[in-house]
Amino acid sequence: MFPKNCWYVACTPDELDNKPLGRRICNEPMVFYRDAEGKAVALEDFCPHRGAPLSLGYLEDGQLVCGYHGLKMGADGKTDSMPGQRVQSFPCIKRFAVHERYGFIWVWPSDADQADINLIPHLEWAENPDWAYGGGLYHIQCDYRLMIDNLMDLTHETYVHATSIGQKEIDEAPVHTKTVDGEVVTSRFMDNIMPPPFWQMALRANDLADDVPVDRWQICRFTPPSQVMIEVGVAHAGHGGYEAPAQYRANSTVVDFMTPETDTSIWYFWGMARDFKPHDQALTDSIREGQGKIFAEDQDMLERQQRNLLEYPERRLMKLNIDAGGVQSRRLLDKMIETEAEAG
Amino acid sequence: MFPKNCWYVACTPDELDNKPLGRRICNEPMVFYRDAEGKAVALEDFCPHRGAPLSLGYLEDGQLVCGYHGLKMGADGKTDSMPGQRVQSFPCIKRFAVHERYGFIWVWPSDADQADINLIPHLEWAENPDWAYGGGLYHIQCDYRLMIDNLMDLTHETYVHATSIGQKEIDEAPVHTKTVDGEVVTSRFMDNIMPPPFWQMALRANDLADDVPVDRWQICRFTPPSQVMIEVGVAHAGHGGYEAPAQYRANSTVVDFMTPETDTSIWYFWGMARDFKPHDQALTDSIREGQGKIFAEDQDMLERQQRNLLEYPERRLMKLNIDAGGVQSRRLLDKMIETEAEAG
Amino acid sequence: MFPKNCWYVACTPDELDNKPLGRRICNEPMVFYRDAEGKAVALEDFCPHRGAPLSLGYLEDGQLVCGYHGLKMGADGKTDSMPGQRVQSFPCIKRFAVHERYGFIWVWPSDADQADINLIPHLEWAENPDWAYGGGLYHIQCDYRLMIDNLMDLTHETYVHATSIGQKEIDEAPVHTKTVDGEVVTSRFMDNIMPPPFWQMALRANDLADDVPVDRWQICRFTPPSQVMIEVGVAHAGHGGYEAPAQYRANSTVVDFMTPETDTSIWYFWGMARDFKPHDQALTDSIREGQGKIFAEDQDMLERQQRNLLEYPERRLMKLNIDAGGVQSRRLLDKMIETEAEAG
Repeated sequence: MFPKNCWYVACTPDELDNKPLGRRICNEPMVFYRDAEGKAVALEDFCPHRGAPLSLGYLEDGQLVCGYHGLKMGADGKTDSMPGQRVQSFPCIKRFAVHERYGFIWVWPSDADQADINLIPHLEWAENPDWAYGGGLYHIQCDYRLMIDNLMDLTHETYVHATSIGQKEIDEAPVHTKTVDGEVVTSRFMDNIMPPPFWQMALRANDLADDVPVDRWQICRFTPPSQVMIEVGVAHAGHGGYEAPAQYRANSTVVDFMTPETDTSIWYFWGMARDFKPHDQALTDSIREGQGKIFAEDQDMLERQQRNLLEYPERRLMKLNIDAGGVQSRRLLDKMIETEAEAG
Repeated sequence: MFPKNCWYVACTPDELDNKPLGRRICNEPMVFYRDAEGKAVALEDFCPHRGAPLSLGYLEDGQLVCGYHGLKMGADGKTDSMPGQRVQSFPCIKRFAVHERYGFIWVWPSDADQADINLIPHLEWAENPDWAYGGGLYHIQCDYRLMIDNLMDLTHETYVHATSIGQKEIDEAPVHTKTVDGEVVTSRFMDNIMPPPFWQMALRANDLADDVPVDRWQICRFTPPSQVMIEVGVAHAGHGGYEAPAQYRANSTVVDFMTPETDTSIWYFWGMARDFKPHDQALTDSIREGQGKIFAEDQDMLERQQRNLLEYPERRLMKLNIDAGGVQSRRLLDKMIETEAEAG
Repeated sequence: MFPKNCWYVACTPDELDNKPLGRRICNEPMVFYRDAEGKAVALEDFCPHRGAPLSLGYLEDGQLVCGYHGLKMGADGKTDSMPGQRVQSFPCIKRFAVHERYGFIWVWPSDADQADINLIPHLEWAENPDWAYGGGLYHIQCDYRLMIDNLMDLTHETYVHATSIGQKEIDEAPVHTKTVDGEVVTSRFMDNIMPPPFWQMALRANDLADDVPVDRWQICRFTPPSQVMIEVGVAHAGHGGYEAPAQYRANSTVVDFMTPETDTSIWYFWGMARDFKPHDQALTDSIREGQGKIFAEDQDMLERQQRNLLEYPERRLMKLNIDAGGVQSRRLLDKMIETEAEAG
């Protein structure tokens, strides 16, 4: 249950090296590669000749060649040539609209002609030289909506991530959720608390004392179909919290794209964007390593939750105030899916 | 096809340490733990909030805490508390009746209110200080009734356990099977034969000559739903066999509980109880090691038999005299299942 | 979708050592062994007593004994004896016709009474002392017809086997396909080309210069239900090609039997027969090793193609001139399957 008339992150540029990349997205087997001009292309991963996966083939001057019998596929899904064959009447394969922006390759899994690159959500941090980004990719066996729930309700940090970013005060702070302009925002502010280990590390990285009370904030923003950006940070207590001047703050943006692979599995692109020391690659690497460990802690819980839900399909889950972020996000998704169903 | 209004061995006390234990029994996902008083508890392994498995959580002063969002579950299946929430209206989860006795945790997989601890079968050896016990647990992919068949027809020892307890004379001795007082007993007596390797070892452990003829016996007793106790032993020939005075005997009780996990898999608790040298822990360990090796020999046969039966569901198996133990055991089980179906 | 009234290669003699061999062929679980006279036998892999797989048993003087309870099975599928039992009324299990010939054990998966050993296709190289043979066995997850397609269209060599036997000129040479006398023959002749690495090696093994132009040929012959023999070779250019005298030639016969295990998996017996240096065992071993590596390159492609076809069952594959070998082979198979359906 996912909308298909929309953009999803398909892969990162480093995954498109000199070989085609096979990746299933929204139940569609796709092959990704770069053409002669370096432009990303996505096609159905199915050779029209005998059904071989084109992703097992190779690239010749930016042209995709089937690794079975040498059929050369065009970037438009029409066969370009094949040794000893006239190819005009060969059936076409599906072409998917792709666009490279903000350091990701985006794909539109339904009709390519409807794809509008203006619909790719704007990512300020990705274009601003004052920001740096580092991230990774996990393959997780769960419905993408379980990951959205997870990210839109950070009380789980207290339990799943107890040794890094969790702390009791998250549970105790009230949470506010609203849907505005087609996005869901859920926020939590915790004043005058001690920073947990991850934030102590971040304070030190900002040359700030790590053993004094801080004001902490979490502002989660869901943008359909599958993006959650979370502004997180701490500031030395009493300097304005989220509004504090930069010299008192350590903050960053958690970046999450959960692209459905199937109904119960995702490609989870996670990362962190920050606007301090943007050129410090060692810091980027160290943050990525730390975040990677923290985010791996969710995997077992989500996969086991998924299995439990498959086992009891008739059970209705609870919708508490802390779940409002996930609930409102699903409402936007349901609307998109309904609109697509009506349209086509 | 198993009765559910009855007691099954769920786990052993050493499996309930400081963490919850997730275990599926009779197709029910359960979580086991000890409460603040050390009493064993079993609940459905499903958090009423978002369906996470409670067995991924932790224990806080004997209370089960969900590892996802910190819901605290009561031993009665009612949510006790959750940070920042009123929990009175939370849906309950299933509570299962459990009871610790004889060195095992027993569970009643259906309605807890019907559970009667007086129905746990009496195990003399477990309470008598003249006896010692050692055992283990195997997870086997077969219907629990295939294991009952296996244990109620020991002619397989000659073939499956040829190098330890098997010997030709088992096949040659007549077998007697009867159903008495809701139990099935099948027995075999082999007089004046040479002891096979396992019994030579047991004779030596009893300070008896191991190279002289013995009288050997096997008395298998099935108690529904899934318990087989086997009195096994040898005595120097001519001293009365099964009735021989202790100074001529080496004997013990093979202990088997095969708890259904699903229709085609079991938790197989196996062990051996003995009434000689009960305080000799090294002997207990050595017997357990030997028995563990022997009982592992059955696993492949049972799993492959199960796959063959799934492949040919319409075939009727033979019911020979040697199969009478299994056949009569299944009759008792069918009756229990039928009674349950009528009742509920 | 495979015919069953016909011979398939089941195993090689070295697989029938002192233990029974369990192998599924055409969806039938079978057990193979040699009787007291050394004659190969095939039976259903199902003990009539309790359904244990007989292949887990053992051989006693050429008699198959069930490893569970010692039932002794006759080579005719009738139980011969069982300890303490009268076996006359035991149900029979299926016996399959088997015949050992040409260095293979052949099996007829349907009614044994219809099996006619004269229908085993003649293999000249297997009986002629001027020839040597070496080969191996791969287990591949694909429909046997995908492997037939593969072998009847060698243009894939250029892509799948680019570093050994592939070369651009294969694609460029016209292919001729015809069905004659119940066989399909597809042939390709490439004159005055440079030999690829594998054939350079073969030329050297024949004490011929490996750096001069050659005439190369490939003559693929499909014999139903699942045999493809390919005459392959090169001769120094200008000496008559396929007809060239032996002193200018390096040639051999690629041997392929793809026995269906299930609808989407095969036992693939591959090998090479040659009529030069037939007694040079080191050469046989070295050819087998090289061929094994080359043929392993097809596995991933075929398995991934199979998965793609299962995903899109409604898609029709193309039938180009290069596919004529596979297309005509499937036509013969369809006819056989239809004839069987009408008969039975």
